[in-house]
Amino acid sequence: MSDTELAERAGLDALAYITLFKTGLKIFGASLLYCIIIELPVNVTGNYYTDYNKQPGVLGDPNRELQFTNFDKMSMGNVKKGSSRLWTHVIAAYWVAFVCYYILYTSYKNMSHMRAQFLSSFGARATVRQYAVLVTDIPASEKADRHSQVDSFFHKLHPGTFERAQVITKLTKVDKKYKEKEKVRRKLAHAEAAYAEAQKKNTEKAKRPQHKTGFLGLVGEKVDTIDWCQKRLAELGPELAEERRKTVAERTIDAALVFFNSRAIATMSAQSAHARKAESWQTQFAPEPRDVIWANLGVSWWEKFARQSLVYGATFLIIFFYLIPITIVSGFSTLDNLKKFASFLNPVFDIGPVKAILQAFLPQLALLVFLAILPKLLLFLTKREGVTSLSHADRGCAGKYYYFMVFNVFLGVTVAGSAFGQLKQMTENPTGIVDLLGSSIPQQATFFITYIALSGFVGYGLALSQLIRVVIYLVKLKFLVKTEEEKRDSWAPGSFSYGSTVPKDLLIVLLGLCYAVIAPIIIPFCIVYLGLGYIINKNLALEVKVPEYESGGRMYPHIHKRFVASLFIAQLTLLGFMGIMKFTATPVMIPLPILTVVFHLFTKKCLEPRFTSTAIEVAIQEVSEEPSIQEVMAAYTPECMAGENEDVESSFSPAKASSREHETALLNGGNRKVV
Amino acid sequence: MSDTELAERAGLDALAYITLFKTGLKIFGASLLYCIIIELPVNVTGNYYTDYNKQPGVLGDPNRELQFTNFDKMSMGNVKKGSSRLWTHVIAAYWVAFVCYYILYTSYKNMSHMRAQFLSSFGARATVRQYAVLVTDIPASEKADRHSQVDSFFHKLHPGTFERAQVITKLTKVDKKYKEKEKVRRKLAHAEAAYAEAQKKNTEKAKRPQHKTGFLGLVGEKVDTIDWCQKRLAELGPELAEERRKTVAERTIDAALVFFNSRAIATMSAQSAHARKAESWQTQFAPEPRDVIWANLGVSWWEKFARQSLVYGATFLIIFFYLIPITIVSGFSTLDNLKKFASFLNPVFDIGPVKAILQAFLPQLALLVFLAILPKLLLFLTKREGVTSLSHADRGCAGKYYYFMVFNVFLGVTVAGSAFGQLKQMTENPTGIVDLLGSSIPQQATFFITYIALSGFVGYGLALSQLIRVVIYLVKLKFLVKTEEEKRDSWAPGSFSYGSTVPKDLLIVLLGLCYAVIAPIIIPFCIVYLGLGYIINKNLALEVKVPEYESGGRMYPHIHKRFVASLFIAQLTLLGFMGIMKFTATPVMIPLPILTVVFHLFTKKCLEPRFTSTAIEVAIQEVSEEPSIQEVMAAYTPECMAGENEDVESSFSPAKASSREHETALLNGGNRKVV
Repeated sequence: MSDTELAERAGLDALAYITLFKTGLKIFGASLLYCIIIELPVNVTGNYYTDYNKQPGVLGDPNRELQFTNFDKMSMGNVKKGSSRLWTHVIAAYWVAFVCYYILYTSYKNMSHMRAQFLSSFGARATVRQYAVLVTDIPASEKADRHSQVDSFFHKLHPGTFERAQVITKLTKVDKKYKEKEKVRRKLAHAEAAYAEAQKKNTEKAKRPQHKTGFLGLVGEKVDTIDWCQKRLAELGPELAEERRKTVAERTIDAALVFFNSRAIATMSAQSAHARKAESWQTQFAPEPRDVIWANLGVSWWEKFARQSLVYGATFLIIFFYLIPITIVSGFSTLDNLKKFASFLNPVFDIGPVKAILQAFLPQLALLVFLAILPKLLLFLTKREGVTSLSHADRGCAGKYYYFMVFNVFLGVTVAGSAFGQLKQMTENPTGIVDLLGSSIPQQATFFITYIALSGFVGYGLALSQLIRVVIYLVKLKFLVKTEEEKRDSWAPGSFSYGSTVPKDLLIVLLGLCYAVIAPIIIPFCIVYLGLGYIINKNLALEVKVPEYESGGRMYPHIHKRFVASLFIAQLTLLGFMGIMKFTATPVMIPLPILTVVFHLFTKKCLEPRFTSTAIEVAIQEVSEEPSIQEVMAAYTPECMAGENEDVESSFSPAKASSREHETALLNGGNRKVV
Repeated sequence: MSDTELAERAGLDALAYITLFKTGLKIFGASLLYCIIIELPVNVTGNYYTDYNKQPGVLGDPNRELQFTNFDKMSMGNVKKGSSRLWTHVIAAYWVAFVCYYILYTSYKNMSHMRAQFLSSFGARATVRQYAVLVTDIPASEKADRHSQVDSFFHKLHPGTFERAQVITKLTKVDKKYKEKEKVRRKLAHAEAAYAEAQKKNTEKAKRPQHKTGFLGLVGEKVDTIDWCQKRLAELGPELAEERRKTVAERTIDAALVFFNSRAIATMSAQSAHARKAESWQTQFAPEPRDVIWANLGVSWWEKFARQSLVYGATFLIIFFYLIPITIVSGFSTLDNLKKFASFLNPVFDIGPVKAILQAFLPQLALLVFLAILPKLLLFLTKREGVTSLSHADRGCAGKYYYFMVFNVFLGVTVAGSAFGQLKQMTENPTGIVDLLGSSIPQQATFFITYIALSGFVGYGLALSQLIRVVIYLVKLKFLVKTEEEKRDSWAPGSFSYGSTVPKDLLIVLLGLCYAVIAPIIIPFCIVYLGLGYIINKNLALEVKVPEYESGGRMYPHIHKRFVASLFIAQLTLLGFMGIMKFTATPVMIPLPILTVVFHLFTKKCLEPRFTSTAIEVAIQEVSEEPSIQEVMAAYTPECMAGENEDVESSFSPAKASSREHETALLNGGNRKVV
């Protein structure tokens, strides 16, 4: 299956994610060639560890003897200090670097090519956003209402090409009403289906469904569900229409979507400064309709600025101090403490198996729960920053989570492992600190190999079996599901959560690159991990997951930059380690990190702009289906505002025909919600 | 005189430079209010130095006694360690910070307002560039020649608004020929004037001027100058025309100036990505005609990238190591060494006064010469980077020179003075290092006060007297000048060299802000320096200097950022010094540097875009005189290509009429050369 087919069927974002695995596989595959075939034998026959332990004075002294496994013997630490064998590793470092440059560049270029193709020829859905420009920070105006203010501003600036503007509104109230109506509609459908089923079984005794109107259906007056729902729906129709009218008329915010009749002008407009005051009338490429976070559009630039400052501060604290309270909570979350706080549950705790499980796993459970919450917390924080699209929020979250893992997993384990792990030997033999450090960095490899193996087999094992989801689906099907709509919803496979999966996979790449030369045995484990990830995620993308949005692969520059950063960290680590290994020609390694920085700047200048903006040349290309302005506007109408109500439509946006098309597109394209 | 008048008469770049002094004066004036009136008495009555020397064990021991001057007694170091008097200095730091924020923000805002006004209403000269877009990195094409390639590309992308394109050419050869022709033309005028003068004195015996045709007029055949020049001019006319024809036809490079008939579209086009390949067809706002560095336009982006990397590396080396060879050369440049190398000059060296002067000043002379060369070297390097405009090169040079001075003057003196200056005491009393450091940081203030005073009085004294220039002018007038053109040229006042003057003045601001709280007595010296600078430079701008280019005040964001950076460095220094002073409430100072970073980000986001791009709203404003496309193109024709030759004009650019206007504009507007 070619990349083009994959992009067509699963979207460009999924392709960007799959490319992560493909790129990683290619890099580690090529590294394998040299590092395993040539470097590994050099390491194994280095015999440093065995020879060290055979020294007089060390032999037989358990305090001074080095502890090592067979994994350690395959690492660079098994080569004698200052040995000329280390030239093998210099070549390995250069080999890995140039393999990375070549493969990363071609992958990036390929993705940018796919994106250009997507932007110009993947049909109307991709083209819609090219007519729209998102305008934020509309300044307050006393003279005119926002609708005419926006109209007159853009008429003046883009005479002839400006088509229509849609001022963004606060959707909270209308969305609440819309959701209530939807809920009642579903309840009615469910009740009717249940009643019909009951009638089929026993026509005479079929009981009409009833429910209580109070809290959670537990209290309050008991009513006939079908009658009640029909009555309520009749009320909600006009109420929703009224809310929609009010929303359009009164609840406008400082943002608008502006539609042009020329894609070239829209593209240019999105990239250009409009107003004399740089902080007002800011334009940007409109996100894809499903991708918009409507609630964030009204956040003015200075509020965004303040929010960002706060969120960055909070993220900084989380990255550096998140593990401290967790460790404390884990320490306290023993069974005894739990018994004190929840003494009424003591009978349960005293049951033998429960007690055993809780005693064994309670501290780890707290740790796991806190760590599982983290990506969600980071995504929540990123959305609070005021970003305008879900894809942007995902990228922001992925970045923060990646920093967290690099600091806490990679640096935390390496530094703590090297500095404190062998503290006992150090205190007894202070002069040997450097020696011990040199031997413990490669020994951390064993830990990380285990980490990779566990992440791969456990993580992807669970993903593959999808057991939990199937169980939940079957339970729901048995007891709750009555209508076709409910059946479809309960099987809803969801979308990829790039914000948490991408950094996890990138951490494996970082570990792999950092230890590729120091302990090449890590490479096969990385290949297995990435290979499993490639197969499973490709299938998930094609067969199961439904994309939440389509940002055109905007995630890829993020992934690429972290590949390059990983390579940079790996080169610095190796440079330091070469020094510890007392290799006299260590300076020959210095050009490598500099080359990597140059490579980063090169790709940033040459390829990144193709992802952040649409070139005019791309925008003017002919497309298979050119959407009408009504279709474009309909696509950008939030679900709760797009309805059957004639009044709203005429004043707000879509014509009847396009509105219906839009509903269809909705069912095909996924779930567009007010976020 | 208002800012508007100043900008109209001297240009916006001069206004930006003058604003540096005005802003500095306001800041130091406001700081003066608190720091001199309230803080200074607190320092003077602190009596730390006198009390320290009165201690038993210190009194009478010249090794342990502190050396201090009256300047030192006025500094913060004279307050006792840990004294609650230090709260005065905390308030001073906050006062200076908020004064800076307010004044910097209003100045920046005012400048951005002036720029917007300039861009839309300062007449045709300012408007011309708004029709033009500079396109670089035009990809190689096999099918079409560059002229039609550029035409067809922009016709496709901007149908209806694209007017004409002017492919840039390599001007080296045609410029050489043009200069030769100019030289002969002047020689002829000079000879004719000299002959006429001679005839006036003595009609009979007047000798026709003669010269030798060989090297420097010293060797070769002797000819009659007037005849020879007339003959040569007749030859050079067709030769130049031929060179022009060849240049247009054969010497095109990968860049073009593209002219639109709509300023709004030109503005948008300059800000938008054009081609699918981000590195090709890159567009930018066209620099003002006089501002263009024609020779750099053909530098492709990857060549620019490579050049920048090399120049940054070289600059790094210069900043850190420039003083080392200078010091060595200074050490060797004694009279005795000079005698060895230039023994034939020994008779001259043995003359009494010459010997005395050389012995005294030779080492300093080497230092001065090397330091005077530095800004020119940095400007040369910056131009080699491949920047497209002189104004950009000036900014780049100013940035590099500023770093040099901060590292070598500010940090060098402070660190060297603090760490090594009192080395003797330190080695004898190692526990007193922190005490001594605390006392030596304020003591460096005396050095910097002297530095400011010298820079101000000597530097501006020389600038004011302009003695050298007048002497040279008078000598030339007496012996060399014959024609009006020569007279005008020999009095040519030149332009400001922002690349070297701006960083010098900014260094004074840095010193002033850093010591404003620690040694407030520095403030009056800064005020005198900046006040002199304000008066002298304003007069120079209005009456003497002729701007080399008009970039619309693009220097101001550069100046503003360095003001903010100075404040940041000052706050860090004070934070550290408070710690040395054992002030227990030191953490109350921590919010200050954070606030400054936030202020920097705020102004960067809110005001900087107004300088880097032209908003559409500004571009569509009506202007008093709207230039025709011929005038626009004529303005962008390099001097050596704009001539009376019919052939070239029709194929290259300007119509006869506009060409003449252009020549007039040239005389009014200053000297446009091929750089």
